[in-house]
Amino acid sequence: MTVLEHFRANKKTEIKDADAGKRPITSGDKSQDKAQTIALAEDIAEQQEMMYATKKHKLLIVLQGIDSSGKDGTVKDVFFSVNPQGIRIVSFKAPTPIELAHDYLWRVHQQVPQAGEITVFNRSHYEDVLITRVHDLIDEKECKRRYAQICDFERMLYETGTTIIKFLLHISKDEQAERLQERIDDPAKNWKFDEGDLVEREKWDEYQKQFSKTIEATDADHAPWYVIPANSKTQRNLAVASIVLETLESLKLTPPAANPKLAGLKVK
Amino acid sequence: MTVLEHFRANKKTEIKDADAGKRPITSGDKSQDKAQTIALAEDIAEQQEMMYATKKHKLLIVLQGIDSSGKDGTVKDVFFSVNPQGIRIVSFKAPTPIELAHDYLWRVHQQVPQAGEITVFNRSHYEDVLITRVHDLIDEKECKRRYAQICDFERMLYETGTTIIKFLLHISKDEQAERLQERIDDPAKNWKFDEGDLVEREKWDEYQKQFSKTIEATDADHAPWYVIPANSKTQRNLAVASIVLETLESLKLTPPAANPKLAGLKVK
Repeated sequence: MTVLEHFRANKKTEIKDADAGKRPITSGDKSQDKAQTIALAEDIAEQQEMMYATKKHKLLIVLQGIDSSGKDGTVKDVFFSVNPQGIRIVSFKAPTPIELAHDYLWRVHQQVPQAGEITVFNRSHYEDVLITRVHDLIDEKECKRRYAQICDFERMLYETGTTIIKFLLHISKDEQAERLQERIDDPAKNWKFDEGDLVEREKWDEYQKQFSKTIEATDADHAPWYVIPANSKTQRNLAVASIVLETLESLKLTPPAANPKLAGLKVK
Repeated sequence: MTVLEHFRANKKTEIKDADAGKRPITSGDKSQDKAQTIALAEDIAEQQEMMYATKKHKLLIVLQGIDSSGKDGTVKDVFFSVNPQGIRIVSFKAPTPIELAHDYLWRVHQQVPQAGEITVFNRSHYEDVLITRVHDLIDEKECKRRYAQICDFERMLYETGTTIIKFLLHISKDEQAERLQERIDDPAKNWKFDEGDLVEREKWDEYQKQFSKTIEATDADHAPWYVIPANSKTQRNLAVASIVLETLESLKLTPPAANPKLAGLKVK
């Protein structure tokens, strides 16, 4: 079984029942796992260079997960080696008045990768069926309509040359408590803490339910969801890096071809 | 029969057989028709003011038509009264390298109207199934895929609050010959002439065929096509202005409600 297959979301899995603490692909040795992630990150960078030079493929990576699930950490630990010219990280925050005056996909479509580029969405259009549904800002009927719109949108991106992979970083409720407490207790981490996180935490079960529903409605072979047990940061990074690399390798990228017209040309 | 019904595209109509010279809604008197268009344009401006103030509706108007069919003229003659703050005209030209590095809907989605706004697309995403198909830049299979993508896209816009109307300005081949000749003969109009127009003119029949196919594939009650006989500019303006106004009136716009909290408030 490939790593891709291993973490591929099962439409029937209830996220609340998934074990956030499991480490299915560990070597058993933490420092070896970390070294392995670094090696994978370097391979990702190499693949990206070929993408950038050949400008044929586009890669869209969606990161979702509850507060403190490790989205920022994943970006840092998996993509640090990639030439910043070939990658863009887009963090979607609460929409601005101008964004709200448009359809919810408007700001998202503007940020999709161009040919040769990797774009990572740190949160995404999925917030428009997650936080909005958890807080009853949209009803079930509207939520289903959005699932269909998102499927159409992602299918169009796929059909126009975009490879899409989507990660749900899954932590346990206890793990979140620890992480939030650390942000409160450690003055150096206070800036990461937002009182709103405690409000969202009260909605824990509802979030787990909406994660399951969303994955069931929007998982597709051309836009697969991967559910990553993320209590262990080492395991999370290893899993995400492996999946990103396997996905890039499946594109069968090659270095750009030499230009025969240049053979023998001497710059005077 | 309303003006809307009168000009609504019939999915079975072959555009090549449609009479570009007919004037179904003329008063019989040209100057009266012109005066009527001016009156309609003023009513449109009034409706737009209510749209702008209440910021609930979005109106997207798509203008398509062969070279010299009168897209620019229609913009000028129908929307001159609207407060420029509430209307945006977007002309889509040949895509730039950055636009081409994205899906063809990328640049289009960025320009859709926001709440309170009318946006007129002077050419549009329909070029991506018209000129591209006429010149065999895409094959029939890709063209059908794009029809489906366009239908999905417009349905999403509709479901998120956008009213869409689409006009095909239809002129005859003889009328185009006259208009292009005028651009050649009149030095003051030379700037409007592009030698490429003569190349496109050779593809006349193919354009008529693609117009018919496109309308058949993308006409919908929530995104209707109107086929406007446009040999007569007066008739064209009268028809377009009538349809735009009837569409705005169907939104049942009302002036923004008074704020009861302001009653009796005195500025000191």
